[in-house]
Amino acid sequence: MTDGNKQLITGKSIILRLEIDTNRIRFSDIVAAIADEGGDLVAIDVIQTKQQMSIRDLTVNVADTLHTGKIVEKMKQLEGVVLVNVSDRTFLLHLGGKIETKLKVPIQNRDDLSRVYTPDVARVCMAIHEEPRKAYTLTIKRNTVAVISDGSAVLGLGNIGPNAAMPVMEGKAMLFKQLADVDAFPICLDTQDTEEIIRTIKNIAPAFGGINLEDISSPRCFEIEERLKQELDIPVFHDDQHGTAVVLYAGLISALKLVGKSIDSVKVVVCGIGAAGVACSKILLAAGVKELIGVDRVGALVAGQAYDNPIWSWYAENTNPNRVSGSLRDVLAGADVFIGLSRGGLLNRDDVKSMAADPIVFAMANPTPEVNPEEIEDIAAVVATGRSDFPNQINNVLCFPGMFRGALDCRAKTINEEMKLAAAEAIASVISDDERNKLYIIPSVFNQDVAKLIRDNVIKAAIRTGVARRIPREYR
Amino acid sequence: MTDGNKQLITGKSIILRLEIDTNRIRFSDIVAAIADEGGDLVAIDVIQTKQQMSIRDLTVNVADTLHTGKIVEKMKQLEGVVLVNVSDRTFLLHLGGKIETKLKVPIQNRDDLSRVYTPDVARVCMAIHEEPRKAYTLTIKRNTVAVISDGSAVLGLGNIGPNAAMPVMEGKAMLFKQLADVDAFPICLDTQDTEEIIRTIKNIAPAFGGINLEDISSPRCFEIEERLKQELDIPVFHDDQHGTAVVLYAGLISALKLVGKSIDSVKVVVCGIGAAGVACSKILLAAGVKELIGVDRVGALVAGQAYDNPIWSWYAENTNPNRVSGSLRDVLAGADVFIGLSRGGLLNRDDVKSMAADPIVFAMANPTPEVNPEEIEDIAAVVATGRSDFPNQINNVLCFPGMFRGALDCRAKTINEEMKLAAAEAIASVISDDERNKLYIIPSVFNQDVAKLIRDNVIKAAIRTGVARRIPREYR
Repeated sequence: MTDGNKQLITGKSIILRLEIDTNRIRFSDIVAAIADEGGDLVAIDVIQTKQQMSIRDLTVNVADTLHTGKIVEKMKQLEGVVLVNVSDRTFLLHLGGKIETKLKVPIQNRDDLSRVYTPDVARVCMAIHEEPRKAYTLTIKRNTVAVISDGSAVLGLGNIGPNAAMPVMEGKAMLFKQLADVDAFPICLDTQDTEEIIRTIKNIAPAFGGINLEDISSPRCFEIEERLKQELDIPVFHDDQHGTAVVLYAGLISALKLVGKSIDSVKVVVCGIGAAGVACSKILLAAGVKELIGVDRVGALVAGQAYDNPIWSWYAENTNPNRVSGSLRDVLAGADVFIGLSRGGLLNRDDVKSMAADPIVFAMANPTPEVNPEEIEDIAAVVATGRSDFPNQINNVLCFPGMFRGALDCRAKTINEEMKLAAAEAIASVISDDERNKLYIIPSVFNQDVAKLIRDNVIKAAIRTGVARRIPREYR
Repeated sequence: MTDGNKQLITGKSIILRLEIDTNRIRFSDIVAAIADEGGDLVAIDVIQTKQQMSIRDLTVNVADTLHTGKIVEKMKQLEGVVLVNVSDRTFLLHLGGKIETKLKVPIQNRDDLSRVYTPDVARVCMAIHEEPRKAYTLTIKRNTVAVISDGSAVLGLGNIGPNAAMPVMEGKAMLFKQLADVDAFPICLDTQDTEEIIRTIKNIAPAFGGINLEDISSPRCFEIEERLKQELDIPVFHDDQHGTAVVLYAGLISALKLVGKSIDSVKVVVCGIGAAGVACSKILLAAGVKELIGVDRVGALVAGQAYDNPIWSWYAENTNPNRVSGSLRDVLAGADVFIGLSRGGLLNRDDVKSMAADPIVFAMANPTPEVNPEEIEDIAAVVATGRSDFPNQINNVLCFPGMFRGALDCRAKTINEEMKLAAAEAIASVISDDERNKLYIIPSVFNQDVAKLIRDNVIKAAIRTGVARRIPREYR
């Protein structure tokens, strides 16, 4: 779900921190050197000055990364200059991390201190000890979600480990707060052992009202989520699977309305049967899709075949009712919907032409879609991708804040399939019949209505299916 | 370290949430019933109104807990009234927990989103992946401490479990932030198995710059802390042990100045050789105390004796150079300093009279001190307790915020004995020679200088002992 490298090739500003030996070089020579390389000096901050030494931050507008490299090289060559650091706005935004703790009430005097801490806090502790469900009213559990990764499958970067995964988890925590007022805390695990991960998450669960799993590689992610769902009494949600599935299904609801087809009559081909592909397929089955065919590098998955990957065997048994076999190209012929979660460039214009009338194409490979939307825009009824620089972005950010807002507000024991369907319907409902068109089937992540509508729908589904432990007043 | 039950007997206000059947009772009858019991109705909030039903919050000033009970009983007896809830200010302060997440920068548009989250965050992830120490500059690790408990020894309440321990850990997180701008997050563990606790904490360590252990029962707390110190490269600090030890030693520095005795010449008796008693003794040994005698329910600990508790055996071997045996009363005779971490009412006026001239008494049992300060104020040179309603409160809150501020700012690998001594000296230094007197040997927890002075001293000690991984600019 990325924007690819687009960010890197637009104009931006960098900050050079230089330690300058004032005996050996004049500042004006440094400014001239930057200008010689085409850099535009726009700000100077003096950080420290001693005899013969000055540390300064120079903000320089540059054209692109290549340009930055040239200026950096030039600085390194200057006599009497030590290049301490080069930052750009993205790195500066990350300095010291992106979230912090905030007190809900200040501690202004000893009376406050004695209430929020010893001795009076003891009464609150004992109230929870006597009635454990009070943890939901008297602690942060009511509003707090753990965003947990082992760093094994971070974005498209692969297994980069827990420290390097933190910026993503912090970003996620920001989105939880900003979009749905959920307090989220990032936990990156220094283990990639399935059992160890399960035990660790169970051990730290008491503080949290929900667990958002993130960027854990397949197939471990299936077992980790499944076991935690069984062994914990709070919602556990692997966003890479279910967030994608919910938003995809929201897009499909909208797209089907546009072409006037019904969910139980369409033939759907899903390409890429990994974690997200399985989750998307499960939500589609729950939503009523009858003819669903999964394709991976072995071709269409067909019941009765022996597959190395146990998920593929499960998949084959539960889909493809007509036992159609063949390549992606073979099975795509006559399909109404293509859902790609695989890799770029798998499809061409002719493949899309072979589909049924008004083909719907979700080309969500990251960062390059399975087919370039511009190549098929005249023949496809709807094209959606994971990218923000094409219309119809299928972005997980649309789902998880409202999903957990709803689950927390009704103290759901779990997030079940009905709640996911309800969330997708809420997202789709944001776009009215009048607004809906082939370039606008799904709302923007900045649409203010999305999280609230998801929350309401999710709570209703949780109450209906008996997993809500609290009925919010407006639903009593 | 509590104020005992004092809070409970002062005037306070409670909030009664009543569901009122308006067909069966008039609101004025409810008001009259409260007045009949001596309650003073000061505010009314209408929460919800339906036909025949009204939910209202009534704020009532009451004299004490007993009084609250009477009013509550009265409400329960009223026809047509359902008492939904009774809150007081302490409980209201805890509704929904005491801390929340705050974004350091808002996400205002797609450009912001693409920097703090995908796709541009990937560059930050890769920078950390390539150079792991950048986790300290580009994530919350630089400023974040985990406050971790297993709920096995919470305040004086005992083994009340992880959920009930949360309010204490949240309170601690508030103090970290308010007093030293450290972001702390409470983690309460759903296990009390030593190995499991060690593994869990190691697994979640990457996000954190330090670990504050809290309210873990003895003797498990020793092994857990020791192992984590060996196996993690971030500071691990069991506050119940070392926070108490640092603040006690700060008080002792000040008290010894007052009586004109030197640390290496005094005879010190420590009563109560549990986690805090051992830590206090260790810091005193490190500070230069020669004649230190530990006493527990078996009497004075003497080398060569066999003790069930392995810590007592260690203690006996490393203290009591003259191998003095006997009861607390026996060994206290002629002592300069008494340090109590045991239980209330162990000492009387005659015991203190038997001590050397200008006796110093730290009676820190909780909530009742080993001896009532008022009973010995005329014969003791200095009396300190754990309570805020007597002079000279030995309160851990004085230590941990500044200690971790210093450790984080120099990226200390550990918190060693030198850093603890330096913290104690910083606390003692807040009180000038002019200010110091028998009723004022230790600053208030609200003294604004304490955390900063501890931080500076701790950083210098960390640099001196080679455990700092970063030298803050002011020390270069």
